[in-house]
Amino acid sequence: MSEKHILVGQSGGPTAAINASLAGVIAQAREAGCRVTGMRHGIQGFLAGHTVDLAQALPDEGALALLLRTPASWLGSCRFKLPSLDDMAFYDDAFARLEQAGIDAVLYIGGNDSMDTIAKLGAHGRRAGSPIRFIGVPKTIDNDLVGTDHTPGYGSAAKFVATATGELFRDADVYDLKSVTFVEIMGRDAGWLAGAAALAGEPGAGRPDLVLLPEVPLDEDALLARISDLLASKNTVMVGVSEGVRTADGRLIAAQTVAAGTGTDEFGHLAQLSGTSRYLAGVTKARLGVKTRAVELSTLQRCASHVASKTDLDEARELGRLGVRAALDGQSVKMCALERVSDAPYETRPALLDVLEVANKVKPVPRAWISADGMDVTANFERYARPLIAGEEPMTYVDGIPARLAPLA
Amino acid sequence: MSEKHILVGQSGGPTAAINASLAGVIAQAREAGCRVTGMRHGIQGFLAGHTVDLAQALPDEGALALLLRTPASWLGSCRFKLPSLDDMAFYDDAFARLEQAGIDAVLYIGGNDSMDTIAKLGAHGRRAGSPIRFIGVPKTIDNDLVGTDHTPGYGSAAKFVATATGELFRDADVYDLKSVTFVEIMGRDAGWLAGAAALAGEPGAGRPDLVLLPEVPLDEDALLARISDLLASKNTVMVGVSEGVRTADGRLIAAQTVAAGTGTDEFGHLAQLSGTSRYLAGVTKARLGVKTRAVELSTLQRCASHVASKTDLDEARELGRLGVRAALDGQSVKMCALERVSDAPYETRPALLDVLEVANKVKPVPRAWISADGMDVTANFERYARPLIAGEEPMTYVDGIPARLAPLA
Repeated sequence: MSEKHILVGQSGGPTAAINASLAGVIAQAREAGCRVTGMRHGIQGFLAGHTVDLAQALPDEGALALLLRTPASWLGSCRFKLPSLDDMAFYDDAFARLEQAGIDAVLYIGGNDSMDTIAKLGAHGRRAGSPIRFIGVPKTIDNDLVGTDHTPGYGSAAKFVATATGELFRDADVYDLKSVTFVEIMGRDAGWLAGAAALAGEPGAGRPDLVLLPEVPLDEDALLARISDLLASKNTVMVGVSEGVRTADGRLIAAQTVAAGTGTDEFGHLAQLSGTSRYLAGVTKARLGVKTRAVELSTLQRCASHVASKTDLDEARELGRLGVRAALDGQSVKMCALERVSDAPYETRPALLDVLEVANKVKPVPRAWISADGMDVTANFERYARPLIAGEEPMTYVDGIPARLAPLA
Repeated sequence: MSEKHILVGQSGGPTAAINASLAGVIAQAREAGCRVTGMRHGIQGFLAGHTVDLAQALPDEGALALLLRTPASWLGSCRFKLPSLDDMAFYDDAFARLEQAGIDAVLYIGGNDSMDTIAKLGAHGRRAGSPIRFIGVPKTIDNDLVGTDHTPGYGSAAKFVATATGELFRDADVYDLKSVTFVEIMGRDAGWLAGAAALAGEPGAGRPDLVLLPEVPLDEDALLARISDLLASKNTVMVGVSEGVRTADGRLIAAQTVAAGTGTDEFGHLAQLSGTSRYLAGVTKARLGVKTRAVELSTLQRCASHVASKTDLDEARELGRLGVRAALDGQSVKMCALERVSDAPYETRPALLDVLEVANKVKPVPRAWISADGMDVTANFERYARPLIAGEEPMTYVDGIPARLAPLA
């Protein structure tokens, strides 16, 4: 049997763990005696002829170790939805390129759209009788892929959210006055990451008082009544809020303008097209007359590798390894996944799912893990999420900043 | 000689190192056999009768070690400018309270306003013939106090800014398309913290292409021309920008509205009262037709103790210790300071300054440390700032988040 040739790519938004999966793919492929080529900028870059020889680019263990702690997608990424399978010319061209390069298996590390890519390439391969295998390795900070207990990338993002929220709470709590802070957290369709704010510490010592998820429509009056109640008994109120929170009629809070409380007149000359947190801070200030602050945790949520979760990095790497083993084992059109065996002690086992069962679906936070009033997560959520932020991988600092692998040319 | 009684307070905005100075004050006072009482919420809280017995609240070394890594002002803070010295009733009351509590020395950890507090209390003490000593221990992430090489708090904030900016650069650089990212950094009057973005890594691997400081008025046309030039030769342009950047006529960029490029009409119905980065992102998108993003590093800059600089924590603690030694040595109306002996190897020595020379002044970044075109810092700046972010103090994580001292009741 000749040397197998594996093509690996990264796609979609970056995470702090997506390079750990890449490192796992490369390590496992090398151990199995495979050649590994990387797509530059995902499938889109590959189709334009942009690849990188990973034996040359990552010659040794030291480079792989640095890759593990390097944020964002080291191979580059793309947002590129493959056309419908009716577009035979596209798929014939894609497979001609794969065959010309002598590719035996394609590993694609990404989220929902990336699993759609694997599903489509796999489906075309089957109808065309191609022997090339297609395996998806999941990543998304949103944690909204179905079929897997959770997705690599989520644990590290959740650890950053919990760490930052706890620090912001202490910062907000220093003055002897009433204040309300809204911390805005990523997740347009699901509240997994916003829920991680609840992991920030003990109540009164870091944990937000309320956590608002996209899964429950926001009742602004109920929220303000609840905040008002909280302010009656304490100085510092903190609300973790998902950027994806919507009103009962489905409008994003983020799309609303603040007319009151921000110095605007009725002609809107200073009206503000707000983020969710800025909108809520404006409304709360206007209606409750209290000091407010809005903090957006921003894209640091997906790239703060300096505070990555070791559990997450380990699992991300293991799923990369699993993907290579699965491909070499003859599997195709599968996504690597994690099944939870137990919460405490935390234990998972790897699994392979039919990627067609996964692509283009979204997994919300179960309603039972959200409090009855819709303004917090429950102990069930914490039991689920707490193990995913556990552990710290040692980080090497050089010149005061985290050591990172140099970018590809 | 009876046991001396030291009163210590924290004031102004919190930092990641302000509790390290507190820990230094307490440790030195205990070693010297002094009693230590804390002001709750600064001088304002003290005058309202709110104090805490620090022997009870921090009984052992373990609590002091946790205090060192706890963000924000553990004693609580205030923003309270003491009245003019003409207000004899105020000062008579304040000194009566100090005498009643048997205070021998007041240590006040804070920024510019806190040094004003020390100056005024000291001046009244002199005219009233009081034996109480008043010593200021500096802290500010803004690094804009005169007389000292730098201020505790700055190094940790700068380390967070450099770390986060480097990660954000990698995140911004994953797609094969042109984009401009503006990273907004604190510092209303001086660009010390914005300049720290230049410490984020090698050019092309983390360092912003441009850094905009409040010290140089922003020429919007020149900035856009420069960005346009950069985009001609590279995909990913990043600009670190101080929140305090102003136009030549002194207006804050942050106060401007974006009329173009954000879907607004001439009546401004969707006009945006922007932050500096959002304003510049809007203008750049409108005028250059390129993808832009605005990221505000937010208050995490002053409380991200999980990535604190060991150099900063060590110096903060040492200045706390120095303050106690100075007070016991009979010094008063002084601010503890750092003199730089050399850049490489980095070496400083402690110093005491007349606090009257310090209060109510601002130290800008020297013009010679800013590039000729005003859009970057020079190697001199890096030589100054790099040692201040060096080193990492080990952090204990519990349940996946940094261990912190429980808040005071």
